[in-house]
Amino acid sequence: MASFYTIRFDGEKVSMLDQRLLPEQEIYYSYTDYKEVATAIKEMIIRGAPAIGIAAAFGIALGAKNIETLDKEEFKTKFDEILDEFAKTRPTAVNLFWAINRMKRTFYESPCLSLNEIKDELVLKAKRIYEEDVLTCKKIGENGEALIKDGYSILTHCNAGALATSEFGTALSVIRAAHKKGKKINVYADETRPYLQGARLTAWELNKDGIPVTVICDNMAGYLMSQRKVDFIVVGADRIAANGDTANKIGTYSLAVLAKYHNIPFYIAAPLSTFDFNIQSGVDIPIEERPATEITHFAGKRLVPEGVNVYNPSFDVTPAELITGIITEKGVVKPAEVKRLKPV
Amino acid sequence: MASFYTIRFDGEKVSMLDQRLLPEQEIYYSYTDYKEVATAIKEMIIRGAPAIGIAAAFGIALGAKNIETLDKEEFKTKFDEILDEFAKTRPTAVNLFWAINRMKRTFYESPCLSLNEIKDELVLKAKRIYEEDVLTCKKIGENGEALIKDGYSILTHCNAGALATSEFGTALSVIRAAHKKGKKINVYADETRPYLQGARLTAWELNKDGIPVTVICDNMAGYLMSQRKVDFIVVGADRIAANGDTANKIGTYSLAVLAKYHNIPFYIAAPLSTFDFNIQSGVDIPIEERPATEITHFAGKRLVPEGVNVYNPSFDVTPAELITGIITEKGVVKPAEVKRLKPV
Repeated sequence: MASFYTIRFDGEKVSMLDQRLLPEQEIYYSYTDYKEVATAIKEMIIRGAPAIGIAAAFGIALGAKNIETLDKEEFKTKFDEILDEFAKTRPTAVNLFWAINRMKRTFYESPCLSLNEIKDELVLKAKRIYEEDVLTCKKIGENGEALIKDGYSILTHCNAGALATSEFGTALSVIRAAHKKGKKINVYADETRPYLQGARLTAWELNKDGIPVTVICDNMAGYLMSQRKVDFIVVGADRIAANGDTANKIGTYSLAVLAKYHNIPFYIAAPLSTFDFNIQSGVDIPIEERPATEITHFAGKRLVPEGVNVYNPSFDVTPAELITGIITEKGVVKPAEVKRLKPV
Repeated sequence: MASFYTIRFDGEKVSMLDQRLLPEQEIYYSYTDYKEVATAIKEMIIRGAPAIGIAAAFGIALGAKNIETLDKEEFKTKFDEILDEFAKTRPTAVNLFWAINRMKRTFYESPCLSLNEIKDELVLKAKRIYEEDVLTCKKIGENGEALIKDGYSILTHCNAGALATSEFGTALSVIRAAHKKGKKINVYADETRPYLQGARLTAWELNKDGIPVTVICDNMAGYLMSQRKVDFIVVGADRIAANGDTANKIGTYSLAVLAKYHNIPFYIAAPLSTFDFNIQSGVDIPIEERPATEITHFAGKRLVPEGVNVYNPSFDVTPAELITGIITEKGVVKPAEVKRLKPV
């Protein structure tokens, strides 16, 4: 993982890789204003549920640090504004709200600290969220690795990799762990329209790690399955309901139906911070719709004629019954066992 | 259909719309050399199974017309070269070979005609193939229209429209006929990666006809079905085997599996010239693989990192058991009834 990083925070500035420019350009930005971090999440300079959570935590710590007041009430007002700003960035990934709540609690549960001490505490908490994510992702890889047999062809969708987390990834952490163990594996990466996270990001980071990867268009996955070219499917998640229903990048649901039809194991890999125990099923997960231009245009070129409608839901919900298992840092669970897990 | 045309032949030159430039530019080329027509098929300036057949017939007539010899044997050698040139353009669409064979027979079954008479005969036959296709497409629309109920949302894939045929289209002829009857319908067009025939072509021609169309990414179709937003699916075909197995644009198979899972009618619309009674099942249909650059690049921009593999099968085969019915110019048949149809 030495060759690039997704996001960093030195206490003064938040730095991140612009994922929109990959694979052509590898450009890093440094932000000293929390609003820039919020915009970066909104505009998908950084994306992926765990990485969004980390970015929000870093952004909140940065924003709090820069609040110029000695009055605690005024600080509180400004701090709440910062929290609100991040809550409005992306609606589906629950890790965002999980991170916001952890940062919020850090403030509200420290009534005896001075403002400077609170600022330091928020920076520490944000860094801890990052460090925990590193360990969590590593553990997910170790827990899922046993499911991968030597010689497997593994299909994944979108990017649930290092670029979507602190390091290692979730789905890609499983793949990395299998590769590290010396298992001969081959990865098919759905290109994942419209944002092409599979083609641009998953292929990029697996290729950097020397893991064989082949990019296909999303509509080719079913054909590959019919040709028995896929042994195993593993994807990430943006939010998992208490009954195991899972929201993830649009197209995941189709893959799950196709996997069922072809009798191929279909796994979700996600940290506990992706579980939303407050909602009973997937119907309650808000599905973000992204701008039409993601579909109508590419690189300044118009793909869809003017005046034609487009529909751009960014996520879908895969019902628990289509999921073989969920790989977490606490082990691999069946969707029906989700309610027995403890919130983090 | 007055606002554009797909292909024309005036006996001297073959003219066609460059479908690669749509929807941004509407540019027509005129070819006087048959090799240019073969290249246009290969490079997908024109595409769609019936349109490929028509283009080949026009190209063969044009090529034959320009053979400069009074010696019948020499003419035959050059004529066979022309047929070969077209046979090498695209492997999957059987209409190509059907058209080549019709042109070939026109020559071989006219032993008493002079070379000039044969040339005239070939031009006439090519024009007849076009005119027959117009009537066939119209009839397909009329035969399929009864399946569409008022208020239906119809999903289609790739472009099986006027741009894929002489006029009207196959799947889109059914949609046009329903619209013409005053039925309120809404069309979802899969954008159809990597070539984007749905976004660029289907949306363009339906929009020109004032038929409501919404473009989605291929990976959104399953989600729409789960939301009960799709009542009916109709697509074209590139080759149909004697048992009803159907090759069509990559992604069709996935749609058929998803349709089965959601209990949505799944229809193929195709003329009899798309049926290949010489092959028993879909496993014998050759599947064309197209250049990697269709996936790795777009508009000069690299989407897939250098050094990463891509796989680009252009078609897949949907087994007969996933097909509700096939809409032909002779009526709507069940896949099991295909063998009772007569070759044209």
